[in-house]
Amino acid sequence: MSQQVELYDTTLRDGVQREGLTFSLEDKLKVARKLDALGIRYIEGGYPGSNPRDQEFFARARQMTWQNATIVAFGATRYKGNRAENDPNLRALLETGTPAATLVCKNSAFHVREVLGVPLEENLSMIRESVAFLKQHGKQVFHDAEHFFDGWKEDREYAIACLRAASEAGADGLVLCDTNGGTLTHEVGEIVRAVRDAFPDATIGIHTHNDAELAVANTLAAVRAGATHVQGTINGYGERCGNANLCAIIPNLKLKLGVDCVADEQLRSLSQVSHFVSELANLHPDPHMAYVGASAFAHKAGYHADAMRKNPLTYQHVDPAAVGNQPKILISELSGKGAVATKAQALGLHLDSPEQVREVVERVKLLESKGYQFEGADASFELMVRRIAPDYVPLFELVDFFVMVETREGRKMLSEAMVKVRVDGQTLHTAGEGNGPVNALDQAMRKALVASYAAVAIIRLTDYKVRVIDEGSGTAASVRVLIDSSDGSATWTTVGSSTNIIEASWLALADSFEYGLLRAVNEHLHRRAKCDAPEPAPAQESTAAIAV
Amino acid sequence: MSQQVELYDTTLRDGVQREGLTFSLEDKLKVARKLDALGIRYIEGGYPGSNPRDQEFFARARQMTWQNATIVAFGATRYKGNRAENDPNLRALLETGTPAATLVCKNSAFHVREVLGVPLEENLSMIRESVAFLKQHGKQVFHDAEHFFDGWKEDREYAIACLRAASEAGADGLVLCDTNGGTLTHEVGEIVRAVRDAFPDATIGIHTHNDAELAVANTLAAVRAGATHVQGTINGYGERCGNANLCAIIPNLKLKLGVDCVADEQLRSLSQVSHFVSELANLHPDPHMAYVGASAFAHKAGYHADAMRKNPLTYQHVDPAAVGNQPKILISELSGKGAVATKAQALGLHLDSPEQVREVVERVKLLESKGYQFEGADASFELMVRRIAPDYVPLFELVDFFVMVETREGRKMLSEAMVKVRVDGQTLHTAGEGNGPVNALDQAMRKALVASYAAVAIIRLTDYKVRVIDEGSGTAASVRVLIDSSDGSATWTTVGSSTNIIEASWLALADSFEYGLLRAVNEHLHRRAKCDAPEPAPAQESTAAIAV
Repeated sequence: MSQQVELYDTTLRDGVQREGLTFSLEDKLKVARKLDALGIRYIEGGYPGSNPRDQEFFARARQMTWQNATIVAFGATRYKGNRAENDPNLRALLETGTPAATLVCKNSAFHVREVLGVPLEENLSMIRESVAFLKQHGKQVFHDAEHFFDGWKEDREYAIACLRAASEAGADGLVLCDTNGGTLTHEVGEIVRAVRDAFPDATIGIHTHNDAELAVANTLAAVRAGATHVQGTINGYGERCGNANLCAIIPNLKLKLGVDCVADEQLRSLSQVSHFVSELANLHPDPHMAYVGASAFAHKAGYHADAMRKNPLTYQHVDPAAVGNQPKILISELSGKGAVATKAQALGLHLDSPEQVREVVERVKLLESKGYQFEGADASFELMVRRIAPDYVPLFELVDFFVMVETREGRKMLSEAMVKVRVDGQTLHTAGEGNGPVNALDQAMRKALVASYAAVAIIRLTDYKVRVIDEGSGTAASVRVLIDSSDGSATWTTVGSSTNIIEASWLALADSFEYGLLRAVNEHLHRRAKCDAPEPAPAQESTAAIAV
Repeated sequence: MSQQVELYDTTLRDGVQREGLTFSLEDKLKVARKLDALGIRYIEGGYPGSNPRDQEFFARARQMTWQNATIVAFGATRYKGNRAENDPNLRALLETGTPAATLVCKNSAFHVREVLGVPLEENLSMIRESVAFLKQHGKQVFHDAEHFFDGWKEDREYAIACLRAASEAGADGLVLCDTNGGTLTHEVGEIVRAVRDAFPDATIGIHTHNDAELAVANTLAAVRAGATHVQGTINGYGERCGNANLCAIIPNLKLKLGVDCVADEQLRSLSQVSHFVSELANLHPDPHMAYVGASAFAHKAGYHADAMRKNPLTYQHVDPAAVGNQPKILISELSGKGAVATKAQALGLHLDSPEQVREVVERVKLLESKGYQFEGADASFELMVRRIAPDYVPLFELVDFFVMVETREGRKMLSEAMVKVRVDGQTLHTAGEGNGPVNALDQAMRKALVASYAAVAIIRLTDYKVRVIDEGSGTAASVRVLIDSSDGSATWTTVGSSTNIIEASWLALADSFEYGLLRAVNEHLHRRAKCDAPEPAPAQESTAAIAV
């Protein structure tokens, strides 16, 4: 398709309707800068009439330079009975000083009656006067046609009348919203086509929600039917089941429909933008997200991994590099030497000889027979490969530990640990107390390590999972522990396995410390070599450590 | 649409290709039973040629009664050069004894050349002979046309030739697979329509993946174009970005396209099935999943919540009750009084008054705020209800415990526990040793209980899962432990939650003992009343106890 499409991001307004999601002012500005660099044409920054703090965002944004983006403020039409020039909501929109504003307007007769409680004609006046008022003040105005698809099905004439009111008042775009997210893909296509025919000169937009898991498909159907303005959010964040996910829409438009909505270079930053926004949102990035998820190009089935080695096109729908992602071969029981070599290479590790590869494969098999599973635990895999090298010197060694948990006559449960650790030739004997035995071990270990490795202070346990592996009759069942950790700028996963849950936890915890400290040491050396070392970023306050 | 659609679930085969997802044999059987009750027509149980352990699943499934479902085994066509009757893969399929089998067959000339490395004609023979062989042995056979859509775009004639080979050999269904998940919705519609026209008498199936976030839309497009067999997985589990999500497809088909694929009552169990499967998979249920997510009908925007109070239809695309979900922020399925009363009734418990129901609801809310979750733990729910009755006498009470785990200078790790328990008015002080701290507690408890309750000997811990629940900022993260137990004739699940993993384990373990002993006591009374008491069945040898 040769059609041009303008991208409109509403992560900072509709996206934050997601349960539990908030951004600080600084984070909102950081997100907006990323979106600008990604090539987003319009960035909706907030709803000043509903959230007075958003005014501050617009004030700051006004002082910044934007390469591609126009900042947009969101608001509703004037309140019933108000005159536009006295309506606080419209005044708040003016005060943002943004070049563009989006007005949410009721486009469903049912909603006008049930929710607004005004005559149908009054709603048309509200639309007409509000759009005209903002146009008089020189703004570019988008008409967000709320509940457009449901409204169309109930009373098509009225839905069209609403669009006409906005269009005649000068709206620059008619954005058809599937507010409840329940419209089917073929319906979206048909309705957008009909609107396109009714308003041949207008810019038609699309804004969908994912309540039927169809938001991306519905957006594409709208574009194929003539929409040229596309609204969505990064990672599909939004209320209920989320908004249309720009991280899937953008590559679908560019790589599959040939719509040149961002530059190749910008598309290559997409995975990074997705992860950046989820970090700031303090949400686990979904590894299974289309295009940008860490597992989006991960292969487990033996025959897939095998075919991928023969020709990477066999089991990939696009080149992962095009969206800044990479293929991933999962190391599992089914994998052989080829998979290990590919994996090591992907992690930037050198396995010099076939003997070394064979040694790693043997080690993986042995550990898997004990219940290890490296699929989700790249950090432990990397450490295992490093440890095989004859010159590898561990950063610390555990000599002994003792953990106890007790409760006495209704008193609060007590968890304490004692560890003996060798660091730099010295043996340290420390004790710690915690919410639970693993946390107590963690605390004791930190006391032992901090003297040699100050960076231990920024390493945080962020998730902890345990499962029992039933290896079938005859052998004892093992417990597998997976730990996610973070140092504020990266996260990594480690694994431990044992018949004893404390030992399994210890093994995963020790790997987590060793990996995090290696990262810190390498980073430091790297910075020293470059002679321009900024201090390591402190752990984010918002990423709470967990204790078990 | 008046069209009939048969649902085909592949959670247990393609679903477990998801990174990190495995089910134990018992869990696979539990999932299959749930799918059967949901009204799934075909349940694909595994790939016996690739995973010999799947044979055990089929052996167990053969001995069970299925209400709606036919169990299906999955495999590939004969290996190049083999004769069908000597091919180990096809023989493994026969040995499963399932009434139906699905054969994955290459339908793309590119893949035949690049991956299979055989002449195009030989691939057609492989398809023809493999299908014919299974048909000769009386199986229903589905032809999974791998890479069909990509194959069609590259070489339409060859893709059709593959379908024709399968069809002429007697295949009962031609399932068009978008193996790489990159096909767009309008393409799926067009291609399925063309295949429908070419094979007017065949059952056409659809199997999609979510790599472009289009799997659900693509499935619906295929059904609208004439497909009547739909493959997918619960929660969309699957490799990379997952398979088509049956939890969105089923309600879309039934509520929006009018396809009567499950009964109303079965549809109302959908949310529960989704959560049940994620519990067994030890994966966080995604709260933002369409239809079944805990937040799928949760409203944050002030004006949405307000409109919802005026008329719930304003911001809901369907009635959440239709899929067993609820509007606003879900505490859980049990949070309402009606749900608690229904649940109690289903478990055969008597809640005499509205006050008792209210008391249970309050207790559930309190425990859920501490990280409990009763969805997968009926035994703990039942005990909670029983304990509320004023005349309930606990079978035992824990007074104190002490657990320690230690390792000294390379010696084997040691786990010991000491417990003080009150049974029948007596205080018993016992000690135990185990593979891990929970096992040590378990051993000490058994010593204390066995004098009063001989039946404790037949209770076995059969699975153990741990998950960290981040209840959001401000509160400490809790650990939730789920324990499955068995007495050889029944299995039950209990839950415990605490910030301390040992305490959470203890709570789940104590419930497991109490529930198992109550069962034994009731069974015994029941048998005495009937005067025909056989001895309790010994624990099955195959169900090994686990230790953690």
